[in-house]
Amino acid sequence: MAKKAVQGNMVIAQSGGPTMVINQSLVGAVLEAGRQPAIRQVYGALHGIKGVLREQFVNLSRENRTGLEAVAATPSSALGTVRMKPTVEDCARIFDILRTYDTRYFFYIGGNDSAETAHIINQEANRVGYELRCFHIPKTVDNDLRENDHTPGYGSAARFVAAAVMGDNLDNRALPGVKIDVVMGRHAGFLTAASALARVYPDDGPHLIYLPERPFSMDRFVADVERVYAKHGRCVVAVSEGIADENGEAVGAKYMREVDAHGNVQLSGSGFLGDLLAGQLKEHTRISRVRADTLGYLQRSFPGLVSETDAREARQVAVAAVRESVGKDVDGSMTIRRRPGKKYAVFYERVPLSAVARETRHMPARFIRASGTDVTKAFLDYARPLVGPLPAIGRLAERPVKKR
Amino acid sequence: MAKKAVQGNMVIAQSGGPTMVINQSLVGAVLEAGRQPAIRQVYGALHGIKGVLREQFVNLSRENRTGLEAVAATPSSALGTVRMKPTVEDCARIFDILRTYDTRYFFYIGGNDSAETAHIINQEANRVGYELRCFHIPKTVDNDLRENDHTPGYGSAARFVAAAVMGDNLDNRALPGVKIDVVMGRHAGFLTAASALARVYPDDGPHLIYLPERPFSMDRFVADVERVYAKHGRCVVAVSEGIADENGEAVGAKYMREVDAHGNVQLSGSGFLGDLLAGQLKEHTRISRVRADTLGYLQRSFPGLVSETDAREARQVAVAAVRESVGKDVDGSMTIRRRPGKKYAVFYERVPLSAVARETRHMPARFIRASGTDVTKAFLDYARPLVGPLPAIGRLAERPVKKR
Repeated sequence: MAKKAVQGNMVIAQSGGPTMVINQSLVGAVLEAGRQPAIRQVYGALHGIKGVLREQFVNLSRENRTGLEAVAATPSSALGTVRMKPTVEDCARIFDILRTYDTRYFFYIGGNDSAETAHIINQEANRVGYELRCFHIPKTVDNDLRENDHTPGYGSAARFVAAAVMGDNLDNRALPGVKIDVVMGRHAGFLTAASALARVYPDDGPHLIYLPERPFSMDRFVADVERVYAKHGRCVVAVSEGIADENGEAVGAKYMREVDAHGNVQLSGSGFLGDLLAGQLKEHTRISRVRADTLGYLQRSFPGLVSETDAREARQVAVAAVRESVGKDVDGSMTIRRRPGKKYAVFYERVPLSAVARETRHMPARFIRASGTDVTKAFLDYARPLVGPLPAIGRLAERPVKKR
Repeated sequence: MAKKAVQGNMVIAQSGGPTMVINQSLVGAVLEAGRQPAIRQVYGALHGIKGVLREQFVNLSRENRTGLEAVAATPSSALGTVRMKPTVEDCARIFDILRTYDTRYFFYIGGNDSAETAHIINQEANRVGYELRCFHIPKTVDNDLRENDHTPGYGSAARFVAAAVMGDNLDNRALPGVKIDVVMGRHAGFLTAASALARVYPDDGPHLIYLPERPFSMDRFVADVERVYAKHGRCVVAVSEGIADENGEAVGAKYMREVDAHGNVQLSGSGFLGDLLAGQLKEHTRISRVRADTLGYLQRSFPGLVSETDAREARQVAVAAVRESVGKDVDGSMTIRRRPGKKYAVFYERVPLSAVARETRHMPARFIRASGTDVTKAFLDYARPLVGPLPAIGRLAERPVKKR
């Protein structure tokens, strides 16, 4: 790779699942590129590397500032997105096209799969001797990227989850029973764990939190819920879609197979895990009112609920990536690191693409209580500044009137 | 019933499904009662008439103003709620208790079932000669109360639905396919129809809207989606949980029975209808990416997303009810009426309890397009002031780069 800034155009694209703030990263990168003399035109590829392969580029240098700021404040991926891992042949074709467009800067905004894509492209570029400054900009609601204290997209999604469970807890208190909320996160429990931020009063839910990091047992789940219900007369449960048994098999898949064996019926879809858990409670307990919701795609694209910290950092990490790209060292993944100390502050640091690519970061043990069904204060302290202040909640003092 | 204000205590309770603004009505009534010399103490019954029957009262006159305002801004029913229709025996017991607490004013906040409860209690009070000023204060996210232009709770729930579908449309645009959102409303389509407010650009979803007011055909649904998908390369669908076939049978129940006949498998739960519709598309079309979400309880209890108009009116209608109760005529349901004219304005009017009780109001024909899968401009004009301004959405100008 080159030792100093090289003149050329820049291609940027978005990849993987959308988030509420991924466009902040896009706009941050575009605006910063405009300030860098080494970077000439900024082209956006539509739907990630698929857009590169199809030569579907839009000229982002010609977007006006007002329009870009409106896009930055809009959830989901403005350039469109894709889930695609490039082959060696894809890379050869990508380089042909990037060369044609005089591209020397390549930015890929996404999660660990997208980091892997950037890593593959970077390795191939090195191998074939194409001077390309290849960067990954982090993004994922799952918060599961290695090397990062947290990832852009997580704070806003966590804010949605916390608000949703806060509302559900109020609903459940008014109309008691069991309420199960299924939260995104196939391998990492960070988003499900954020439901704990919903608590305001000591008896508030979520009363039970099930994470992929701890083996799930259906018997224990039923017993846990019965215990909470006996105590509070109600129970709010937050459960990760990725919960798995002691053998690592996803609970949803496991029970779906069992049902198939019985009746050859195709059971699938977004509601399955929640309905399964509710069904088990109805079958094995005497609790009459059991409801389940799957929070679904709203968690990553709901407008008007962004965490300000998340939005700011999503932009800054992209700005930092562009600044880094015109320096001496010329590839990598930008990460968010937290400064030690009581006051929340972060800085951005470049790491090798290989350090972030593919692998999943899980909830550390210190964030999970020994019970396995709750998070620790350390997690709450970790998550609170990322999510920002939640809506204020009030309760009646409920001064009882003496019975007559 | 009495011809002029009678001195006594007041009992107020909440009933039916919670909403984001039902506590505004509670607090409005409590504060206004404090201004009325005829009303002495205000008692809140916990969990509706169940709390009356169990003598579970809290003294709302002893709540401080700051606390009450915090409660007003909090979603869900602060007094707890119930779904219960009183028998004649219940009424006799209720009057025994209300008399013991020197109660002359009774307010029940809820939907058409709650209006029926108030109506029954009022009729029984008249029959047995108990002077009780019995009022219903409207509340329902379904917006299905007769006599009302709209109901408190609807605007905020509609705001949630519109924002959710707005986010889903952005998500679907970035990662194309079919997205189905199942919206609350078993008999009336107002909430599902509010998804149309999500549209900003001409190609924005929801592209198809299915309401309980129009018969649902699975074949037509599949054909509709295929047509939209062929045109836009994607499709966002908003569908009411209450869609029914030409015989009035709920689609969910109908297909659930069919599956039972095949395999004796218990299929139920919140996710069923969405999963069913997605499954049909996977089976009968070549569209590979089909997803469904059921918006669920978040629609009625999500904090921090209240429509200001909704919150204001929920309070005012309760204030109006209390003012009316100390006047000459002494029972009824307060309604929200819209003033004719371009500028949005409402007034509150008392109607007989029988006019609101039990029956469901449906979407009028002028709100539904001839296609049966979209709403009219008349509906959008009707709904927009109730929901308030939605988050601003931006798009890239997407100036294409010429292929080289």
